Amino acid sequence: MRVLFAAPAQGWDRWSGPLRAACPEMELLQDGAPDSFDALIYAPGFPAGGAALDFTPFNRARLVQSLWAGVERIVGNPTLTQPLCRMVDPGLRQGMVEYCVGWAMRGHLVMDSYAQDGVWRNDVVPPLAAERRVTVLGTGALGGAVAQALAALGFDVAGWSASGRAVDGVTALAGADLGAALARAEILISLLPDTDATRGLLDADRLALLPRGATLINPGRGTLIVEADLLAALDRGQVGLAVLDVFQTEPLPPAHAFWSHPRVIVTPHIAAETRPSTAAPVVAENLRRAMDGRALLHLVDRARGY
Amino acid sequence: MRVLFAAPAQGWDRWSGPLRAACPEMELLQDGAPDSFDALIYAPGFPAGGAALDFTPFNRARLVQSLWAGVERIVGNPTLTQPLCRMVDPGLRQGMVEYCVGWAMRGHLVMDSYAQDGVWRNDVVPPLAAERRVTVLGTGALGGAVAQALAALGFDVAGWSASGRAVDGVTALAGADLGAALARAEILISLLPDTDATRGLLDADRLALLPRGATLINPGRGTLIVEADLLAALDRGQVGLAVLDVFQTEPLPPAHAFWSHPRVIVTPHIAAETRPSTAAPVVAENLRRAMDGRALLHLVDRARGY
Repeated sequence: MRVLFAAPAQGWDRWSGPLRAACPEMELLQDGAPDSFDALIYAPGFPAGGAALDFTPFNRARLVQSLWAGVERIVGNPTLTQPLCRMVDPGLRQGMVEYCVGWAMRGHLVMDSYAQDGVWRNDVVPPLAAERRVTVLGTGALGGAVAQALAALGFDVAGWSASGRAVDGVTALAGADLGAALARAEILISLLPDTDATRGLLDADRLALLPRGATLINPGRGTLIVEADLLAALDRGQVGLAVLDVFQTEPLPPAHAFWSHPRVIVTPHIAAETRPSTAAPVVAENLRRAMDGRALLHLVDRARGY
Repeated sequence: MRVLFAAPAQGWDRWSGPLRAACPEMELLQDGAPDSFDALIYAPGFPAGGAALDFTPFNRARLVQSLWAGVERIVGNPTLTQPLCRMVDPGLRQGMVEYCVGWAMRGHLVMDSYAQDGVWRNDVVPPLAAERRVTVLGTGALGGAVAQALAALGFDVAGWSASGRAVDGVTALAGADLGAALARAEILISLLPDTDATRGLLDADRLALLPRGATLINPGRGTLIVEADLLAALDRGQVGLAVLDVFQTEPLPPAHAFWSHPRVIVTPHIAAETRPSTAAPVVAENLRRAMDGRALLHLVDRARGY
């Protein structure tokens, strides 16, 4: 089985080892004659240069396996007539839990208050997690798992969602309770989807409801936050620390005020990153299914777009 | 019941509220006639100025309750003839777990690699916790709890102790396995006691066994680490991040190289800090026992010294 690694070359070192380990019978290549390949492993940014990939000459390929969960940048490509599958990485939820727990601890332990200036200030002691109120906005597969992990560590956690969906060990708050959800949130974590109802949810009025000095962690969707309002809230200390992984515009422009704000930590949309170690077995399974003519996993419905 | 808060004045704001809430029948004061007090709540640094407190005129006091677990700075005071009790804070273990989990996540999530310089580097993605090997040195009450909390988050955890004491969900390593314990430790957490066997344990040879770029977290005892050897290991990148809460000399001198080293984070001996919220009920219980003439908790044996 000959497979083209149709993804940016900088990903080769991360991906080639785990992919070959998961599927030793595969000959994985970075180039070759298009009609020699049985399948393609695809990620946006291939080929280099910005032109859309022409799938037409890959006339033997029985599978185009995306390494990304989102296929919006390829699903409309008219040359793509081969079966297209999106990535559903079992490690994504765990990675999101780890991201949220880790950055929540950064706020909880007031790590940024320990100035490395030679002054021994041993009166800065954080409260225990049981005395720290965390609100998770969104209690779906990701938000629910994050809320449970924080509750297991001892935090006083509430989960807010439109329906008030219950999560074990977590206070359930529903739509009308948004004010209360924010007012308690010494640490606020947003894992809401991007919908008409959530777009711009965190504006000046809502941010003003947070306890002064709150930590805001947003690994969900950049559209949730009115960025100018957040900057104003950061400037006056209403928000004490913002850890942002998603933005209105990505990559975040180099001149954006978030980069240089002392109370902001920018991470480059890596919280929900697909991991080679957990994704490679998914790719291997689909390659084998394609070679054997069996039903593919996570096959994209072209009409629906995902 | 009149009680003197015989502790540094800067602790008043943190302590007075929780103490009064836990023991509403107490009249808590910062000064007054010594022979008017029924008990003293003590912490080192009182009185201000450095002179040892003269306990002689407190001739009505039935209890001197330390706010510190360690009483080595007061136990030898010849004027102290009143019953002396040390603090055993039920929140201390939880606080240590939170400190270790939080700083371990700082290393695990490579937080310090996200330079806030306007460059979007989304190829820096940490592995999942399951692929991250953590070693905890010391598997007693604190080390065991820390190891279990990290295992619950998904880390691949080993616990090392002289006896190889087993901890649920954690690989047990014993004395002779120290080399293996260090060689696997992408994150190394030290919670060993200060004994002849542990003093200087982490020297140049032992630090050289760590995986390159390891994170070292030491909230245990400062005597464990040969500080010059650690600085050399940090300089060459052998240790990638050191989070240090305890030191050979405390407070850490302002000119010490740890303060300014870019790979070192100094915290001022706060990992095992007594918390007012969990310690105040312990104080209240002992005050009531003293007033009622019942047996005191955690009474110090003057001959033994603790």
